[in-house]
Amino acid sequence: MKSKLLLSLLALGIAGTASAQMKPEDAIKFRQSAYGAMGWSMTRIKMNLDGTFNKEDVIKSANVIQAIANSGMGSLYLPGTDKGTGWEATRAKPEIWTEKEKLGKAGGAFNREANEMAKVAATGDAAAVKEQFGRLAKTCDNCHDDFKAKR
Amino acid sequence: MKSKLLLSLLALGIAGTASAQMKPEDAIKFRQSAYGAMGWSMTRIKMNLDGTFNKEDVIKSANVIQAIANSGMGSLYLPGTDKGTGWEATRAKPEIWTEKEKLGKAGGAFNREANEMAKVAATGDAAAVKEQFGRLAKTCDNCHDDFKAKR
Repeated sequence: MKSKLLLSLLALGIAGTASAQMKPEDAIKFRQSAYGAMGWSMTRIKMNLDGTFNKEDVIKSANVIQAIANSGMGSLYLPGTDKGTGWEATRAKPEIWTEKEKLGKAGGAFNREANEMAKVAATGDAAAVKEQFGRLAKTCDNCHDDFKAKR
Repeated sequence: MKSKLLLSLLALGIAGTASAQMKPEDAIKFRQSAYGAMGWSMTRIKMNLDGTFNKEDVIKSANVIQAIANSGMGSLYLPGTDKGTGWEATRAKPEIWTEKEKLGKAGGAFNREANEMAKVAATGDAAAVKEQFGRLAKTCDNCHDDFKAKR
């Protein structure tokens, strides 16, 4: 018997055949979710920096960011997902599909700083975490400036 | 100068002072995001099992699930988040706050299978991934049955 989760995936039309394609609204929802999970993790690191620094909390947060940063989210920017609604209307700018080189550089910078964040978190050195958090946050900002529409 | 991301966090009221508390609607949105990111990753593993098996894709997906499974999402189930709206109205059942022992067991089972999934994914053995995926999906189902309201 298939699990209920698998039946849900089948119902979404995203599983069951080799040629199955993800629906645009699912792709948009998944990428908003991935950014949201990273938003939580960044918030959590910030709370640890501003309040009581708990090394384990910071490591867990950095690991989530690292795993998502390295997950290949580019595959969620399918053709036809420049408009549409996942959890909310996408704020992806058209430049995502037209300025590949600039996007690649922004993504690469984010990736590097996310990997570094995980390394620094593992040391438990709060001052170093603070510094690296700032560097990582800057790569988020830079990418949002160019590729995410303002509200 | 503070980064814009930091200013956003400050605006959300979740950064800036040691005693800062996360807003209930942010906690709900963050947990829905984390589940959504895992939903993407499960979907992606399933697509790899049903279509062309790409070892790297499966590893990346399993790593996201593992990092989130080990992130301590329990901290997002703050008092006052049994009702409320993040991306959508929460479907958390009251039992999350009353059946701690049952929840702990369900969470523990999910954690174990998520960690095992990451190990199995690293081997690149598609048959083993399929088997472990089924085990992991079953722990998702079990927890949803008891602790997540139906639509």
